[in-house]
Parts: sequence; C-alpha cells; structure tokens
Amino acid sequence: MSLNNSRAEIIAIGSEFLHGGRLESNSIFLAEGLAKCGIAVEWKTLVGDSEKNIALAITTAVRRANVVIVTGGLGSTVDDCTREAVAAVTGRKLRRRLKAFTVLKTRYAAHGRPLTNVVSRQAFLPVGAEMLENPVGSAPGFLLEWKRSVIMALPGVSKEAQAIFETQVVPRLASCVSQSTRLQQKMFFTVGLTELQVDDRLHPIIRQSQSVELSLLASVLGVTVVLRAWIPQGSGRSTNQKFSEFESLVSLIRQTLGDSMYGEDEQTMEDVVGQQLKSASLSLALAESCTGGLIGHRLTQIAGSSAYLDRSFVCYSNQAKQDLLEVPRKLLNRHGAVSASVAQAMAIGARRKSQTDVGLSVTGIAGPGGGTASKPVGLVFIGIDGPYGTHVKPFQFYGDRQDVKMRASQAALNILRLYLLRFFKS
Amino acid sequence: MSLNNSRAEIIAIGSEFLHGGRLESNSIFLAEGLAKCGIAVEWKTLVGDSEKNIALAITTAVRRANVVIVTGGLGSTVDDCTREAVAAVTGRKLRRRLKAFTVLKTRYAAHGRPLTNVVSRQAFLPVGAEMLENPVGSAPGFLLEWKRSVIMALPGVSKEAQAIFETQVVPRLASCVSQSTRLQQKMFFTVGLTELQVDDRLHPIIRQSQSVELSLLASVLGVTVVLRAWIPQGSGRSTNQKFSEFESLVSLIRQTLGDSMYGEDEQTMEDVVGQQLKSASLSLALAESCTGGLIGHRLTQIAGSSAYLDRSFVCYSNQAKQDLLEVPRKLLNRHGAVSASVAQAMAIGARRKSQTDVGLSVTGIAGPGGGTASKPVGLVFIGIDGPYGTHVKPFQFYGDRQDVKMRASQAALNILRLYLLRFFKS
Repeated sequence: MSLNNSRAEIIAIGSEFLHGGRLESNSIFLAEGLAKCGIAVEWKTLVGDSEKNIALAITTAVRRANVVIVTGGLGSTVDDCTREAVAAVTGRKLRRRLKAFTVLKTRYAAHGRPLTNVVSRQAFLPVGAEMLENPVGSAPGFLLEWKRSVIMALPGVSKEAQAIFETQVVPRLASCVSQSTRLQQKMFFTVGLTELQVDDRLHPIIRQSQSVELSLLASVLGVTVVLRAWIPQGSGRSTNQKFSEFESLVSLIRQTLGDSMYGEDEQTMEDVVGQQLKSASLSLALAESCTGGLIGHRLTQIAGSSAYLDRSFVCYSNQAKQDLLEVPRKLLNRHGAVSASVAQAMAIGARRKSQTDVGLSVTGIAGPGGGTASKPVGLVFIGIDGPYGTHVKPFQFYGDRQDVKMRASQAALNILRLYLLRFFKS
Repeated sequence: MSLNNSRAEIIAIGSEFLHGGRLESNSIFLAEGLAKCGIAVEWKTLVGDSEKNIALAITTAVRRANVVIVTGGLGSTVDDCTREAVAAVTGRKLRRRLKAFTVLKTRYAAHGRPLTNVVSRQAFLPVGAEMLENPVGSAPGFLLEWKRSVIMALPGVSKEAQAIFETQVVPRLASCVSQSTRLQQKMFFTVGLTELQVDDRLHPIIRQSQSVELSLLASVLGVTVVLRAWIPQGSGRSTNQKFSEFESLVSLIRQTLGDSMYGEDEQTMEDVVGQQLKSASLSLALAESCTGGLIGHRLTQIAGSSAYLDRSFVCYSNQAKQDLLEVPRKLLNRHGAVSASVAQAMAIGARRKSQTDVGLSVTGIAGPGGGTASKPVGLVFIGIDGPYGTHVKPFQFYGDRQDVKMRASQAALNILRLYLLRFFKS
C-alpha cells in the first residue's frame, strides 16, 4: 500500500477526555512521529468509551484521512471496545490470535494473576488484521487496511502506545511512504518579548518566503517561534532549493532574535542554564521568596543538576531572610521584603552563605492579595551576585498567582543565562 | 429552541494542536460548564486553521450533536477563519456588526493601536447570528441556530473563551435546556494505593448500582475515583430515588477509602494540608533534597500560604545539609545522604533551625543515575518532626526523574496530612 501525500487522523478513546477533566496527550508524540515519516495530522477526534461512537468516529475518519490511528480502548475491561468497533466498521469478525494469547498467558503467569475470560479479550483481533506486538504491556495493537486507508489501533497507556508506535508502526509506515515530502520543523524559544514584538521583528524576514509557514505561540514561559515547511525529498534541484531556503531562514531568525532566544527545538531553559553552569564549572545557590522553590524544582528536573546546584534558600518569611541570608532587618523594615535592596541582599547572602560562585534571588508579590498602589501584584525583583558583580532588575508580571510564579522563575533563569553568557564571551 | 437530551461537540481550532505539541485545554472547562447545564459532551474535534477543514468539522458535528461549540479562529490574523467557515456551512454572508465594531474601535483607541482593515475583521459576523459580547478581549463570539443545532463560536484565548462562556453562553443554555436530566459528578482523590487496590476496595460497593458509573484514573499524584450519574430533574419519586442512591454511594465510598482519600472534587493536596496547618495555627519548615524545591513550590501555589510556610531548606549538596540543618557529617558518611537517619536529622534540623512547629524532610534518588543495588533509583525517605514525635518512612517509587520527584512530593505532603490528622483527633 502506498501512503504518499497522506493525511492522518488520530482518534483518542476515553470518556475521561470528554468530561473527566483530563487532557489527551498521546496524540502529541504520535503527530511528531508521523511528521517525521512525512505524514501530516489533519484531524484529532476525542470520543468516549462507546462502541457506537467509536465506530462512527472511524467511519468519519477514513472518509477524510488515509492514515487513522486509534489510541485507547484495547484493555480488558468492559469499557474497552475499540476491537469491536473496528470489527463492526470493517465488517470483520473478532478471532482469538494464538500469538497474542500466548504472550498474555505468559505475562499473567509471571505476575501470578489469573487469566480470566475478561482478560483474554485482549487476544482477540479482527480477522485479517496484522498484530502489532506490545513490548511493554499485555494488550497488542493491530493494523488493517480498509478501503483506501490504513487503520491502526494502539493502547491508551502512553508508554505502551509509544513503544508499539516506535517499534512496530514507524517501520511499517516508512516502508509504504516513499516520503515524497517531509515536514521540516524548527522551534525557537524566546523570553522577555511579547508576541507583538516577536512578530514585528520577524515579519520582514518571513514575508520573503512563500513555502515556509511561521507561527507564534505565547505561554507563561515566553513566545515560541515555529517554522514549518513540507520539503520534497530526493536529490533534485527543487529539494535543495527549498532546503537551503529553510536553512537560511533559520539562521536569519536566529540572528534577529539574538539573546532574546534561549533555546531551540527540544532545549528547555533548565537545560540551557544547566549546560552553561556545567561547562563553566560554576556552582549556584538560590534565594527564593515568591517562587517558593519553583526555580530549584525546575533546575533539578535535569539529571546531573547536583553538579552545579548546591542549595536553595526558600525564605518565605522575613525571619527566614534574616536567619539564612543575613538580610539586615533594617533593610526589610525600610524598603519592605519586595524591593531592589532586599533582592540584592538576598543574592549576595545566598552566594556568601553557601560559598558558591553565583547567587540568584527572587522576591515579589505573587498575589492575589498583598498588592498596594506602589507595589502592585506581579511586582518582582530579581537579583544576581557573582564574579561579574551584582545586579538587580525589577519586573511587572501579569496573570494569576501561578502565572506570576512561573514568569518570575523564567525571568530569573534568563537573568542567570545572560549573566553566564558574559563568562563565555569574556 | 429546546435542547433537551442534548449531545454536545466541541471543535477546537488551531494547527498548534495538531503538530505544534500543544495540548488543548479550553474543552475542559467547556465540558464542565455544559455538564452543569445538563448537556453531555460526546465529541471533541481538533482541526487546523483551514477554512475547508473547519467547515467540514462543523458539518460533521451538526449531524451528530445539537450543541456545537467552536473555540479559536476568531482573531484578526489571516489564519483566523472560523467566521468564514461558519458562514460557508450555513450559507450566510458575513456583515460588519456595528456594536462589535464600536467595541473594537474603543479598545484599540484605548491601547493607542491603529484599527486596520485586518483588525476590523473581528467585527464581522454571519447574518442572523447573535453576538456574544467579550468582556475581556476584542473578538466577540457569536451564536446561531442551524438545522436542529445551535452553533456557538468563542475565541481561542482561554480567558476570553471562559468569560464569554460564563456570562453569555450559560444563561442562554439554561433558558433553552429544561434540564430533564443533569450530570451529577463526584471525585475522590486517593494516595498510596494502586489502581488495582482501589478497584478491589470499591468493586463490591459499585456492583450494587446500575445507574451510577464509576471510573478510576491513575496519575503520579494517585488514583482518582470518579462517580457519575445522569439524574432526572424535578421533584418526582424517581429523581429522589436516584439522588439518594448517588448520595449513599458517595458516603459509602468515603467511608471505604478512609484516610487513603485526601480530597474531594476541587481540593488539591496543597489545599488540604494548607487548610489543616491554618486551622491548627501550626507553622512548617521543609528540608528538601531530591524534590529540589517542588514541595515548597506546590505549597506556595495556594494564596495565603505565607501564614504557615516559613521556609524550605533545599539542600542538594551534603555540605548544605550540614550547614543549614546540622546533619552530622558522621551520619552522612556512615549511612549516606539517602537514609532513614539522615531524613530524620533533616526533619529535626528544619524544625529546630526555623523554630517552626513542624519539620518535613525528603531525601532520595530521583535518577536516572545514582542508584545502587542496595539503594536503587526511586528510593526515598520522608521524615517528619513535630509535637507528635519524629517519624521516618521509606518509599520505593517508579518512573522517570520527574515522576519520582512528583510522587515523593505527594507522599511527603500526605505524611504531613496524616500527622496533622492526629492534631484534630486528639
């Protein structure tokens, strides 16, 4: 079967996505994986655990897409009815597949659990379907061609869906897609600029290109620039031209964004700052007030962060600021805990008390209470102390308490990043 | 128009949901709000910024649902084409709506921005549509009836969609739904039990009921139990009977889960523990190692947490544990940083050094590196010190670094919760 110029639809099964308050996320890695195979996802449908509705979703999907991936509904409980729905849509019977049954029997025996009739349902597949082995769980997936589409069913459990997709689905797709075109994608992460500011800077550049699509996504962490183009595959002139057009846009954007860009593609701020500290062999201490530990939490999401993060003084009370960071009481009384002088004293104190190379501090009003006319909610001071001197910068953030904390943590890590850039430039 | 026994479909517009790696979340509050009006969401469709595909999505939706809510694509950029798609599907023209235009003009004037033709697009609505005023942004939503369905269009920006939904949509829905049935929903949050354990406990209870649906959702924070029933409205016997059946199940489940349940409905662990500390007038200090600040971050997500959280000593290095918490060097050398004795010393140190009522500590191996045969990745010790003595408990968590940190933070807050329960029982 040839799947050139494919459109894909992802159908995610689960009542929890409709009214259980749960966000669906399998489709994210599925879309990324499909794009790498040259297949664009054009539709996503979320539907509950109802055989009738799943069948209707599949019927609708095969009309508008030729790659249909269903995730969920392959478990052993009564709720799980994707097998039945696919069988109904394609007019096939469900039959016990010996190989699937043997795997199931072995897995259940190993865990000392009984193989009931209910559990055995997982070994039933539509007649003619190809079984997709599950390397990490008990329910196999399956694939079948129907009309001009290929329908693939994967479990809802993320790790299982991912494992089957990577080991079973990708190789099969690669063999039937000649990759006439392939999605080329590039992401840039900026901080400290509004969507409008990024747009203003990039507009003159992007206007030149017709085949490259640019989009901006704003979040509390900053504005992400996404560059996307479908590039014909092969060694022809058109491929080379489109590819070099894409590449030159990438370098132009990189240059235009300059220091406002902190990372590309998979890099997070935590990665970037961690890498900087590591290569410079610098140690860090934090003094967090309104962020409450968030900066330490973010830095320690990175494996190996103990190499540079020594400690964080989360000083929520004034007493803690005095005890741990030796912030003078006079300073707290005169300027208040949310002030440039206290931010500075916190950064200096964090560095000195921990004997690290750099001290980074945050103090602010996360809200919703605690604001005044002169010090409104969202006012945050960030201080840094290290080999390049001491600096303090005020910020005014917007949003709710969670937003202000997240924006403050991002701004603080960015100040650290810019400070460390000097180390590498000097 | 009567919307009894309604089925709703939510259509979310945005290419970023298809291949930009972004999760769609507007549909979460929309589904909750609809459920309160007695309307069940049966479908969600995600589609890119393509007029043709949006039109196709709406055509498909009105066939299977009688309440269709479209979110996104109402802005002023060329990408935004929901207005055009709705006009095309329903065969109506787009016409400038004076009221919308005046609002737009005023908003732009206030921000000193020019009202270009592109921006003015937001004031165009399909003929015959009812405008839904946007209390917090420039793009109005709109509502129109078509065939046997009502189609509503809301902006993609979450805060705007939410504001329009609450102030404009809900009152309109309430007037046309006689609420013949209404979704009754109850959630229980458990911690420390596996999905299978919760299932084992609840199975005998839930088997008795036919009209109440029970589902379990496992996450790193624990297993959530969701109880759901559509209850006929009115004052009849059937209503009362179903309602009291639901209520008696709720109390039976509450009783069965006991202390394993930490919260219901909208309560988070941070809320619950914060409330406990507040009502008992107890202050808290944290000593975090492997969680890196996450516990402090979580507690400070709650407004007013400064009333009980004094500080957190995030002691990533052994030196920090000695300096800040006076953990004896001998102890660290003999037992290692990840040990029951160090967890205990950290909790005692945190309490003593901060002079708070309670000290809570976490030390463990978040991974992926750093594990040994006797101390594998995921091993975590949690210590607590306070008026009811000192306790340490070991845990073995599974998952990646992020999972281990999150599970450890949840277990630590739960130990604090159980410790504080004694305060209220004594």
